[in-house]
Amino acid sequence: MITYDLTNIGSDSLYEYLYKSIKNDILQGKLKAGEKLPSKRIFASNLGVSVITVENAYARLNAEGYIYSMPKRGFYVSDFGSPIPEPKKSFTRQRVSLTGGDASYFADFSSNQTLSELFPFTIWSKVIRELLSDSRVQLMTNSPCGGILVLRQSISKYLQEFRGMAVSPDQIIIGAGTEYLYSLLIQLLGNDKVYGVENPGYRKLEQIYKSFHVPCEWISMDENGICISELEEKEGDIVHITPSHHYPTGIVMPISRRYELLGWAARKDGRYIIEDDYDSELRLSGQPIPTLQSIDKSEKVIYMNTFTKTLCSTVRISYMVLPQELAERFYEKLSFYSCTVSNFEQYTLANFILEGKFEAHINRLRNYYRKKRDGLVEAFRNSRLADIVDISGEEAGLHFLLTIRTQVPETEVMERAEARGIKLVPLSKYYYGESGMENVYVMNYSSVDVGKAGEIAERIYKSSV
Amino acid sequence: MITYDLTNIGSDSLYEYLYKSIKNDILQGKLKAGEKLPSKRIFASNLGVSVITVENAYARLNAEGYIYSMPKRGFYVSDFGSPIPEPKKSFTRQRVSLTGGDASYFADFSSNQTLSELFPFTIWSKVIRELLSDSRVQLMTNSPCGGILVLRQSISKYLQEFRGMAVSPDQIIIGAGTEYLYSLLIQLLGNDKVYGVENPGYRKLEQIYKSFHVPCEWISMDENGICISELEEKEGDIVHITPSHHYPTGIVMPISRRYELLGWAARKDGRYIIEDDYDSELRLSGQPIPTLQSIDKSEKVIYMNTFTKTLCSTVRISYMVLPQELAERFYEKLSFYSCTVSNFEQYTLANFILEGKFEAHINRLRNYYRKKRDGLVEAFRNSRLADIVDISGEEAGLHFLLTIRTQVPETEVMERAEARGIKLVPLSKYYYGESGMENVYVMNYSSVDVGKAGEIAERIYKSSV
Repeated sequence: MITYDLTNIGSDSLYEYLYKSIKNDILQGKLKAGEKLPSKRIFASNLGVSVITVENAYARLNAEGYIYSMPKRGFYVSDFGSPIPEPKKSFTRQRVSLTGGDASYFADFSSNQTLSELFPFTIWSKVIRELLSDSRVQLMTNSPCGGILVLRQSISKYLQEFRGMAVSPDQIIIGAGTEYLYSLLIQLLGNDKVYGVENPGYRKLEQIYKSFHVPCEWISMDENGICISELEEKEGDIVHITPSHHYPTGIVMPISRRYELLGWAARKDGRYIIEDDYDSELRLSGQPIPTLQSIDKSEKVIYMNTFTKTLCSTVRISYMVLPQELAERFYEKLSFYSCTVSNFEQYTLANFILEGKFEAHINRLRNYYRKKRDGLVEAFRNSRLADIVDISGEEAGLHFLLTIRTQVPETEVMERAEARGIKLVPLSKYYYGESGMENVYVMNYSSVDVGKAGEIAERIYKSSV
Repeated sequence: MITYDLTNIGSDSLYEYLYKSIKNDILQGKLKAGEKLPSKRIFASNLGVSVITVENAYARLNAEGYIYSMPKRGFYVSDFGSPIPEPKKSFTRQRVSLTGGDASYFADFSSNQTLSELFPFTIWSKVIRELLSDSRVQLMTNSPCGGILVLRQSISKYLQEFRGMAVSPDQIIIGAGTEYLYSLLIQLLGNDKVYGVENPGYRKLEQIYKSFHVPCEWISMDENGICISELEEKEGDIVHITPSHHYPTGIVMPISRRYELLGWAARKDGRYIIEDDYDSELRLSGQPIPTLQSIDKSEKVIYMNTFTKTLCSTVRISYMVLPQELAERFYEKLSFYSCTVSNFEQYTLANFILEGKFEAHINRLRNYYRKKRDGLVEAFRNSRLADIVDISGEEAGLHFLLTIRTQVPETEVMERAEARGIKLVPLSKYYYGESGMENVYVMNYSSVDVGKAGEIAERIYKSSV
């Protein structure tokens, strides 16, 4: 009969140790398929343990399929069939980055990270605290697929007041980031459609469409925005645009092109415009521009926005506004999905907006960024850099364009700047194919320290001449 | 010259009112394309306002493209081209549900909602409070695509201790719900692969695959789990299983079938097993069963789990464990995605786990559910219902199967129960095609009031005879 030494079982219980020992013998082939195990009573007395210990070990081995029982006859070792082939370890093990890769630059113009001093921690904490003590049942009640009603109502009210958009809460769909919302749109609109994206533009869009194997075409921009003739030529069905403030050039699409685009969409079934209004709240001078959505009468515009820029990049809440017809289709086809944003954050944000804290926060942000931008631009203009650069697109959003007039090639300027602790992002990176843009840089300034502005200007100057 | 009455402008500023008035005239065709607007100075003096007011109005109209400027000549009305066609309002406007649809049943066996008394509000609040005061910089630092390191470490440690799995944090990918993780897997493994799902099984899986137009096949179950011969026949590449506790039948896949399945996966490149371990923590009797992942030597098992059942259904945090080779591919192909779970919730959960609160919470849950299940099952067994039912699969998870022996057709039993306030879910609903299962019900008991158990039994009895 099999036996085991139970005098040195470590931290295991007797039963666990016994279970592991038998399993081990089975896996190593010491106990063969079909072999009968000792009866519980005899085995227990042999090992000097209680019957219940053996019983538990057998029960677990049985539940896991290592052994099987035959009524009135006892337990037998299972047959596992043929052995498992070993894997081919042909790939080389690469280092997998676990951190955000936040290198310590003197000034990093590639980062969109929110500075922690800008997040309204005190009010946010207060809202959460109130929620956790007063709204426990709501917090535990499953959210509808498109998001909780009170958040959609507060967004609807906000859009009415600040963007002049008349949108019913059921048209608003909440999701964990715009990237996620795109995957919903692909499912809603069809993965056989041709998606047009702006060239230059936000490269991640193409990555998402490609990753889903969805046809995606780059459409050139002229000074008024995306070229409709090229869109027609490339047979785009859906077009993705940033008309309020093009990323990254800063172009504002004039009303004439807007109407042209709406006309393009209305001419054929299945055509849609995705209007990404990602940073309209952070327009620093003048009034915000009316959205395409608000002048669309043909139910062709899908409006998208995010709290990533206005709240912080680490809270993942975005939303889209669907035309009524698409909203119906959404509820019909995709309402089996759970909302991807947790109730805790949905309710916190809703209360934050409803209590007027969001508006106050946006105003504070706008002032902060205006000062930062002014400080940077002024320091640049008062430096030696002024003689060799142009600044444009600085009236909105969290970036401006810096054009450096130099004979030094772009790659070299960047390398030199990098060596001086300045991380620059070239506009050419946002182009598919030839950009014709040499030494134009997209300056994402939100996380840059404006106190260093003079020194930053000097370092960029030195890198450029 | 055009003129406007500025005596009654409501809450608008002078400039806004002027802007709107001119825009309105342009849109209504009172001001025609090409028409010259009055010079700023003359217009201002005519209206009795400052030049700056007119200047601002013109600037905004210009920025929005309603008008354009000709150097040294002034402003002209833009040409919008052809008018926009009106939409075909052919669809019927349906009511769009905004709530979770939580009808007030006497007992709802379809709901998986967590009761608010079960959520550890006090500890959760404390962890959040500490985070918001002590970890502001971390909270604002962008998460790596797969989730913040400390959460992945805490999950890795947890899997080691409670599931005996040796998993490095970089193999763990955090996402806002398993549904989202499936969309990542489709992108990672390919949308040309054939995905096999269990029949019966969790119907949502098929909905997700269909929604992405990914080939999906139902694979029959026998008493040991999914049938490998049928999987081969239907040329499945990826198979999705719930081996620890099949949903909804409760079958535990024995070790022999597990090895067979691993063998199947190892025989061909591109084959993978998705092991959904969704409720293993809530096994109510005996020890949890080792995962397929922990006995997989061929890097063929993708392990999935969620905090939806163990924490609450409204916190959207799930994770998957990728084999090293797939993890590398993930970082290569999909690291452009932002993590879909906000930092606030990732850090809260990480600290909750690291402080041992998760383990304590699971134990509390297990006791609670064991009592609830025992109360229900006992009440059922002590009622008239006992004579006509069998209960099975009650040793694990938050549901058991209730087989009613009756001549009354299933649809009628359900209707009658519904009329008595009891929401029943038939097992047949989980089958694709003919189930052969009449009057077997999946009893999701987690949100049912056990104090009503006797009355529930009586009502089900009355609905069945």
